[in-house]
Amino acid sequence: MLPSSIAILSPGLLGGSLALAARERMPGTEIRIWARREDSVSRVRSMGLADTASTDAAAIARGAEMALFCMPVGAMAEVAGRIVEAVSADAVITDVGSIKQPVVKQLEKIFLGKAQYMGSHPMAGSEQAGLDAARADLFEGALTILTPTDQTPRNAVDRIAHFWREMGCRIEETTPRAHDEAMALISHLPHLTAAALVRTVLREHPAALDWRGNGFLDSTRVASGPPAMWAEILVENREAMKKAIHAMIENLTEASKLLDADQTGGIEHFLAEAREARDRIKKRSTS
Amino acid sequence: MLPSSIAILSPGLLGGSLALAARERMPGTEIRIWARREDSVSRVRSMGLADTASTDAAAIARGAEMALFCMPVGAMAEVAGRIVEAVSADAVITDVGSIKQPVVKQLEKIFLGKAQYMGSHPMAGSEQAGLDAARADLFEGALTILTPTDQTPRNAVDRIAHFWREMGCRIEETTPRAHDEAMALISHLPHLTAAALVRTVLREHPAALDWRGNGFLDSTRVASGPPAMWAEILVENREAMKKAIHAMIENLTEASKLLDADQTGGIEHFLAEAREARDRIKKRSTS
Repeated sequence: MLPSSIAILSPGLLGGSLALAARERMPGTEIRIWARREDSVSRVRSMGLADTASTDAAAIARGAEMALFCMPVGAMAEVAGRIVEAVSADAVITDVGSIKQPVVKQLEKIFLGKAQYMGSHPMAGSEQAGLDAARADLFEGALTILTPTDQTPRNAVDRIAHFWREMGCRIEETTPRAHDEAMALISHLPHLTAAALVRTVLREHPAALDWRGNGFLDSTRVASGPPAMWAEILVENREAMKKAIHAMIENLTEASKLLDADQTGGIEHFLAEAREARDRIKKRSTS
Repeated sequence: MLPSSIAILSPGLLGGSLALAARERMPGTEIRIWARREDSVSRVRSMGLADTASTDAAAIARGAEMALFCMPVGAMAEVAGRIVEAVSADAVITDVGSIKQPVVKQLEKIFLGKAQYMGSHPMAGSEQAGLDAARADLFEGALTILTPTDQTPRNAVDRIAHFWREMGCRIEETTPRAHDEAMALISHLPHLTAAALVRTVLREHPAALDWRGNGFLDSTRVASGPPAMWAEILVENREAMKKAIHAMIENLTEASKLLDADQTGGIEHFLAEAREARDRIKKRSTS
């Protein structure tokens, strides 16, 4: 059952795109948007993004059948505290944070017995940020990972999954911990690596940046993401990140040793193994 | 002065694209193509890529005003030996190798007093390879780095620069050594890093590959390049690569330490510095 009203808490890239997508794909659903600042509320109104917009979180959440937390993860608990007494017990609540253990722990505790919460992670970010970059098709074909726990009401899982499918997403389910460990490798490490690559050239030979080809721009695209948001994600996922960085350094060290071998066979095998794995996932993604 | 005939030695991605671009941008210029294997010669003929095609390198080079070495760098000296007695003393010769010190050293010696050689590096590769991926606009807007030495005739520099400009390239000049040191950082390290990223996920948590987003695909795109060709480049540029890998590991280690700090300010600064530098070069490339 799709919600007849949704409260989008914070209209950034994801929240704004959710509003646009819901307007298109769930006509008739009432869209309510909370923003922290008056000028953001004004922008939401002038864009015609919502049926109701306000800086009063409790007023926006009251009566909504679904609420979605779309602000940076570090701000979610505070806003949850503002709406917990306003939402009805059968409202479903989710968030779009890129990291799940700390968020799920906090929000689950706040909403326990007060509403039906489960964490989500729509993998539909971009190196862009903010309402200006929002678009109705951001979630089209994206993967959304749901992270139910022992405490999640089954009803919440079904309704939240239904909602994301309606937004155009594919769905996977895992635990918050398994999610964070996988993301350290497949998302957070690539981000940090892209930043480290740029920084390595900056430190060693800044003039070489003038000679970057498209390969360098692709390899470092994610490094253009918002630093404050990513710093928070990396620090929140600290333990898994440290393991991932360590493993990355081991692989680079191995490659460096292979370059000293008499034959090129070792490093060629290193590159071939990576190419094969990458081509496999690339094929899946375009099929 | 543009050449009235060019010999393209080996019709892969770059050689094939050169033939297509020359046909379009230098109408009237005779295009001669050498390929090592008969079946490649047949394909060149059936594609109508050349006025003359053959497996006889000397026959293709004889009388051509310009010859371009487009095979993997490790095979260039051998083919140079085959054509050196056939080319005229005022023919200009260049190559498209991604690494310049070993290539320039070898070819300069072979052609000294026999033809007018200078190294080139058109930064117009792709993760694709082979004649199938060739296209007439591959060089459009690309940067070509010329690497003259004390021994390069000035006339060769001018004529080769003229040719690349006609192909749509921007031109820079530097020494073979400065070229290789810059490429270690801006091209070869990103390639190795992309492979190491894929390999890290493969080793630590292969199932996480199923959850890759577009960020991961972008970050690792260059890892789909041909392993044998890249292994050769990395090994030939071994000393600069080892320094670059070491610097990359230092940056990753610094990031790992910053994650342990109480505040997120340190890692945020790390990310912000990279973003600022990347956005700067990105802007230049789209303006």
